Amino acid sequence: MSSLKKQSGSLHEKAGISPPEITNSAAIHQIQKNRRKQPSAAELINGILDQNRTALSRAITLVESTHPEHAEKANEVIQGCLPHANKSIRIGITGVPGVGKSTFIEAFGKFLTALGKKVAVLAVDPSSSLSHGSILGDKTRMEELVKDENAFIRPSASGDTLGGVARKTRESIILCEAAGFDTIIIETVGVGQSETAVHSMVDFFLLLKISGAGDELQGIKRGIMEMADAIVINKADGDNIKKAQQAKLEFNRALHLFPPKKSNWQPKVTTCSAITNEGISEIWDTISQYFVQTNASGFFQEKRKDQNHFWMMETINEHLKSNFYNQPGIIGQLEQIKKAVQNDEISPFAAARFLLSEYKKQL
Amino acid sequence: MSSLKKQSGSLHEKAGISPPEITNSAAIHQIQKNRRKQPSAAELINGILDQNRTALSRAITLVESTHPEHAEKANEVIQGCLPHANKSIRIGITGVPGVGKSTFIEAFGKFLTALGKKVAVLAVDPSSSLSHGSILGDKTRMEELVKDENAFIRPSASGDTLGGVARKTRESIILCEAAGFDTIIIETVGVGQSETAVHSMVDFFLLLKISGAGDELQGIKRGIMEMADAIVINKADGDNIKKAQQAKLEFNRALHLFPPKKSNWQPKVTTCSAITNEGISEIWDTISQYFVQTNASGFFQEKRKDQNHFWMMETINEHLKSNFYNQPGIIGQLEQIKKAVQNDEISPFAAARFLLSEYKKQL
Repeated sequence: MSSLKKQSGSLHEKAGISPPEITNSAAIHQIQKNRRKQPSAAELINGILDQNRTALSRAITLVESTHPEHAEKANEVIQGCLPHANKSIRIGITGVPGVGKSTFIEAFGKFLTALGKKVAVLAVDPSSSLSHGSILGDKTRMEELVKDENAFIRPSASGDTLGGVARKTRESIILCEAAGFDTIIIETVGVGQSETAVHSMVDFFLLLKISGAGDELQGIKRGIMEMADAIVINKADGDNIKKAQQAKLEFNRALHLFPPKKSNWQPKVTTCSAITNEGISEIWDTISQYFVQTNASGFFQEKRKDQNHFWMMETINEHLKSNFYNQPGIIGQLEQIKKAVQNDEISPFAAARFLLSEYKKQL
Repeated sequence: MSSLKKQSGSLHEKAGISPPEITNSAAIHQIQKNRRKQPSAAELINGILDQNRTALSRAITLVESTHPEHAEKANEVIQGCLPHANKSIRIGITGVPGVGKSTFIEAFGKFLTALGKKVAVLAVDPSSSLSHGSILGDKTRMEELVKDENAFIRPSASGDTLGGVARKTRESIILCEAAGFDTIIIETVGVGQSETAVHSMVDFFLLLKISGAGDELQGIKRGIMEMADAIVINKADGDNIKKAQQAKLEFNRALHLFPPKKSNWQPKVTTCSAITNEGISEIWDTISQYFVQTNASGFFQEKRKDQNHFWMMETINEHLKSNFYNQPGIIGQLEQIKKAVQNDEISPFAAARFLLSEYKKQL
């Protein structure tokens, strides 16, 4: 089974070590036999609903698979889990490298499981297929949480496109929820558009920061601050406490200049230390308060409906674009037209009309 | 000619007054004769390059027309003007109703023409087809500027979609520039996504605000503050001066918390009064400084190239989506599928796959 896992897994927990090539025909035979023994969709669904972690892991691997033959089975499993999903709070956590995301999630996760919560930690990191998982790639970064039987940690799905990674993560959320996890944490490292993608799949979006001379300015991507439901200034310990308090003051002032959110939620700024655990419980209080408030107003369910709709539209749109830009007739001409447009030799609209007519010809 | 204009014009300067129905066959004949006398594309191009305002107006009307037969001619005119366009600075101005946009543009425009600039004022207001032009609909709102021979004011193009209005405005910019206008002002009222659209067609984006008890918070749409290259606090006169200074301080503080812009431009906050003209020249100084700085760094031309490319992609994308959502097979099923997705009866990705396969069947 372990050799099979090496072959079929889409995870790269030990990047850099190539799986050994299989030249032994008996081994191949054994693998093929094991493959035939893969659990059926119904077995996976039952396993997940029984809160069996192996079944959950296998279903996620199925969802992450790029084999076309796996797609239908994955779909069946998700469809079977859907009625049992959704009873959770989904929390997105972002922050630049160095802000202490792993340490924070470990401390926060341990706090939650101690409260009796069942915590699943997933990640969105479209760069992981290149960097072989720059976040959560190494489970040992959360040494304590990974051993916790009420926690489930899954590294980022690999994938070429953010859309692909986002789909896999969204579907994994469904599976985790059906397996009884009531608190879903989605970590993102904030490469490209991944923060926006994560923001579109969670209920609560938390921006992790550290204080320090001038670094309030560093690395926050434009628009991220406006997305945050809470800004948490991490590493507020030792000499850092005063600076963290100052940063808190500044962010609070800035947040008040933003227009009110659709949720009517006024974003909170807090400080914490993942080392001393100072401030961790306050973060959960804030999230609970958000949950109560948006449930009462109906915003919570409304947002989830909007997100479902968004992902349907987004997927359709991505497919339409990909069909267009991958059509041989378009590939052959795009670069030249693009240059002409950039250099004002042809208007962007005339160029678009031309390319669309070329596309239609070949449909 | 004036009755013809009433029939074919896409402008609604006198909303509420329906054009008289034409029942006189002689009049119809005259109109048809006039129509035949419409200037050719070459004549329009020559007229525009000669800085003839009538030719410019007619060409814009052509660009705004929804008649398919006009599209090709409009395209020809734009193509002819393109090599002569681009020598300008394009300034976007936004602000909530009541902030004094018209009065500001009048004061600012007069200041610019007094400097020897040739100023064109256009507008993006996708709601104008419904509201019959909530901005610039009534030229008399800029009484002085409209009489200025170095200014050209054109109400917002009507249109059902923001994409349509945006295209018309983008193409009108080209025509104005070819006609020798060196300062293009694009006003937007900020309905829906129109501010983002305007931001994507200008070099410099100015957010107009007023101070006052608490209204720093009112009506700024999310993300707009991050787009601004300058925030101008208008109506800084009389009793308002102190409050305006206070608002300036607060916005300056907030802007410093944002990550640096790609342009490396640090957005400026200033106060002004369109009544006393206090602060108007400083705004132009700021814009000139931006122009010098971004020209030197190459960002100015780079941004225009990016914008050209963006509008090509955007137009293609809009067409692909519109083809999809208007296909009878999709129309017939979309609402039901959408509901199922929102209610978690089917996953958004499975729903998207299903709709895409239905779409393909009918292509």
